[in-house]
Amino acid sequence: MYVETQEEEPEIKIPLPRVGITNLRTIAKINWKGRIYTFIPTFEVTIDLPREKKGIHMSRLVESITDAMSEAVEEEVKKIHTSLEELALAVIKRLEEKHKHKRAEVWIRTTLILEKTTPASRKLSYEPYDVEVAVIKEGKDVKKRLKVRVIGNTACPHAMANNNGKTHIQRAIGELEVMADFNEEIALEDMIEVVESSFSSPTYTLLKTPDENAVVRKMYENPKFVEDVAREILMKAREKFPGRIHVRVISNESIHKHDVIAEAWA
Amino acid sequence: MYVETQEEEPEIKIPLPRVGITNLRTIAKINWKGRIYTFIPTFEVTIDLPREKKGIHMSRLVESITDAMSEAVEEEVKKIHTSLEELALAVIKRLEEKHKHKRAEVWIRTTLILEKTTPASRKLSYEPYDVEVAVIKEGKDVKKRLKVRVIGNTACPHAMANNNGKTHIQRAIGELEVMADFNEEIALEDMIEVVESSFSSPTYTLLKTPDENAVVRKMYENPKFVEDVAREILMKAREKFPGRIHVRVISNESIHKHDVIAEAWA
Amino acid sequence: MYVETQEEEPEIKIPLPRVGITNLRTIAKINWKGRIYTFIPTFEVTIDLPREKKGIHMSRLVESITDAMSEAVEEEVKKIHTSLEELALAVIKRLEEKHKHKRAEVWIRTTLILEKTTPASRKLSYEPYDVEVAVIKEGKDVKKRLKVRVIGNTACPHAMANNNGKTHIQRAIGELEVMADFNEEIALEDMIEVVESSFSSPTYTLLKTPDENAVVRKMYENPKFVEDVAREILMKAREKFPGRIHVRVISNESIHKHDVIAEAWA
Amino acid sequence: MYVETQEEEPEIKIPLPRVGITNLRTIAKINWKGRIYTFIPTFEVTIDLPREKKGIHMSRLVESITDAMSEAVEEEVKKIHTSLEELALAVIKRLEEKHKHKRAEVWIRTTLILEKTTPASRKLSYEPYDVEVAVIKEGKDVKKRLKVRVIGNTACPHAMANNNGKTHIQRAIGELEVMADFNEEIALEDMIEVVESSFSSPTYTLLKTPDENAVVRKMYENPKFVEDVAREILMKAREKFPGRIHVRVISNESIHKHDVIAEAWA
Repeated sequence: MYVETQEEEPEIKIPLPRVGITNLRTIAKINWKGRIYTFIPTFEVTIDLPREKKGIHMSRLVESITDAMSEAVEEEVKKIHTSLEELALAVIKRLEEKHKHKRAEVWIRTTLILEKTTPASRKLSYEPYDVEVAVIKEGKDVKKRLKVRVIGNTACPHAMANNNGKTHIQRAIGELEVMADFNEEIALEDMIEVVESSFSSPTYTLLKTPDENAVVRKMYENPKFVEDVAREILMKAREKFPGRIHVRVISNESIHKHDVIAEAWA
Repeated sequence: MYVETQEEEPEIKIPLPRVGITNLRTIAKINWKGRIYTFIPTFEVTIDLPREKKGIHMSRLVESITDAMSEAVEEEVKKIHTSLEELALAVIKRLEEKHKHKRAEVWIRTTLILEKTTPASRKLSYEPYDVEVAVIKEGKDVKKRLKVRVIGNTACPHAMANNNGKTHIQRAIGELEVMADFNEEIALEDMIEVVESSFSSPTYTLLKTPDENAVVRKMYENPKFVEDVAREILMKAREKFPGRIHVRVISNESIHKHDVIAEAWA
Repeated sequence: MYVETQEEEPEIKIPLPRVGITNLRTIAKINWKGRIYTFIPTFEVTIDLPREKKGIHMSRLVESITDAMSEAVEEEVKKIHTSLEELALAVIKRLEEKHKHKRAEVWIRTTLILEKTTPASRKLSYEPYDVEVAVIKEGKDVKKRLKVRVIGNTACPHAMANNNGKTHIQRAIGELEVMADFNEEIALEDMIEVVESSFSSPTYTLLKTPDENAVVRKMYENPKFVEDVAREILMKAREKFPGRIHVRVISNESIHKHDVIAEAWA
Repeated sequence: MYVETQEEEPEIKIPLPRVGITNLRTIAKINWKGRIYTFIPTFEVTIDLPREKKGIHMSRLVESITDAMSEAVEEEVKKIHTSLEELALAVIKRLEEKHKHKRAEVWIRTTLILEKTTPASRKLSYEPYDVEVAVIKEGKDVKKRLKVRVIGNTACPHAMANNNGKTHIQRAIGELEVMADFNEEIALEDMIEVVESSFSSPTYTLLKTPDENAVVRKMYENPKFVEDVAREILMKAREKFPGRIHVRVISNESIHKHDVIAEAWA
């Protein structure tokens, strides 16, 4: 009835490993212990395109997301901390029924809000963390990539040694990525903890005066270069998590207009 | 020969004050003391659309920029520090010959690099500043808006008073806008100086150890809230510059994941 | 016990109208018809600072947000479409108990996902819209500002008239802001509808082939300049909504590297 | 005289492959045929950190940039189209005298403005392109990475086949990266040409009515999926350029709120 241009032979017959939709924002739902949690992630979903087809059917990728979401509320996720991976895998399963492919990737970017306790007054503080989860399926092989981005700080040890304990301090951002088999159990919360505990001090949304004092003390007792932060994240991550690891720390220097960076792989 | 849809009567006859092109990046040239300076600003150029016309001729706005640029190299700018305004006015002059209008606006966004001297070793350091200049002509009335955005720092006086001289320090951004008659002589460099001198300390691209120490000392001798920075910019700007003033200071707190803000008008 | 630097006299005694926290992301909850809805907005909360005080107590602004959120789940919102304003007002009410001020502003930015029906196959499609809601209280006077940002498209009528019905088409973004008394009932959904219905065609996340054909037909039957889109939004908004109106339409031209813009106020 | 904390032994002895400065904006100068060209790129400069040192001396990286810039005006670049690589290599050469390392990377991001001729009226149009050049030196091995980002458009062949020649059209972005030995001669201008010629049509900053008509005609004669654009870039790039190739095409769909993507490596 309709022309299916996608099924035609292309002029240039080269296979493409990643074709799909990106920057798609939609509502996602998780049923945990009988309660529905909603959030608005950004999706990228791609499949491979064989050399003899002109294009993929993009709308089937969108339908796979929508279908996975509506079924998600019927099935309980067993563990809240692996729910983003389960959601991504659920999209791939729908996709397998809808569109032939050899390789599929689902990337989900969102913000987690975790409850923390402030260091002195022990008040509740809600902390935001950017996270990204990908599930990549090629044949029977299923891998995942988990990324967290945490805001902390650095107090410079070099300036401290040269200024009788005074130093420059600044906001810093730590990123940790773990690439592992889908079945490895790795909690995003544990990854966040690895990064957050490696700064001069963690940061908090709410700080009353005694809490502020505690953070100030902690930063001066714990001076660190970005190099120190990166090494500590790397060491802890290798101990805790299986798979390949990528670490990147960027410090928004308070004495410069530019940033400094330390990056490593393991 | 061609249909001029823009000249037709629109269905909905409402005048529009601002219609044009935006986010246009192109090469700009200035001839100062016989030497050509080039840079790549971003332009927004708009004119008003009367109620009885369907649209404006967008390509004439682009041509006004291009023509002004090619003529700019033939005429010397007299004062380098007003050259962005002269460039904007040159675009409006070309536009007056090409497209009927009552009101025209030309906005130019770019980065200035200024030479500074580091505080102890007296080395040369090149510092980047985002600036924006607008010229707005309505009939014979010509106004301008000048904006600068400067990166500095704040050392918190409250934490300092509660922690025996220790405190949290962070990168901060100060913005100053002045709206005045076109003929008022206001140098972007002076506006930058007003903002930069109002932080706990200025920041530098290059800092050798003795310079770093000088900046650290200066920050601790000069603790400031964003409120203090905003007030100082406002006070200095009112003394130095004619016209309306807008000040905004944002501090990327090193102890929080969010920012703090102080804003005022005069 | 602690030094309250904020309560000291500042060196420069100038009142500041807007001092507070910005870019704060946290979890927000709404109880509608007994069901809890969660989302992660970005907050800006400011109060005025009188001339004789050095600073404001920032942590009380954060506490006002947290307290308003935890109480929100106990009280049902009556109307889902005014819930963001009620949330902002709830923050201001907590703030009145915690921190003296004359003027308070709460700004909430988030993404709404609305259910739409595709134009031909009548399938369900979830559509994302950026919205921002502000409540501004000065003495007894309470005002609100409501903004929506909608993605649609434009098909150029000038190119269509000169190319036998062929034309260039592109993604366009329409923004509508309404400033009114707090008590005026204005639904964000209605504002979105006003913008979305003013493009050459609305856009959809899911489009099967017959839907895609319907959108293509609609765009060609309905060619529009950004000027036409802006005028239609302005006309409809003036009919439907009380208060001051701001409209801005930006088109990501498919034939240029820059954008075109039409902007108006009423 | 000063404490050199960087030279101390770190607690965690792990080597880091990339440590340095990033997001540094400064002025760059090139002397070509006796004339000085200036522009304002963004730099990232990193070196490796051995396991037994606590940190690197960041200020020496900044000095390497500054020194390379001031010497650049004395030496003529031989070929304008390899000048960014020569600039990056000049920074590495200064760095070799200032800071011991095994591996050094210099990344330069900037905007090129190229002169194009409009398709019908043959007017001059200045077109902006984002480019990034990296030089990576490890021992005696010197490699480079060249990236270009070009704005074009796609006219959908599937909608065209189903709507009697009518279709949806949109802005699209094509990215091409080539990784090769430093000595391979690859012009950024040729890479831009490969991408720009692979869209349904190139885009232009200036278009008079006959030019606009020519672009419209070209888009309808040349309908392409992002898949087609990616394959054409890949095929042409493999023919023209040595080394590894990465292609990514993103289309800002005019009928959707999300984008579509095609990506490949060779």
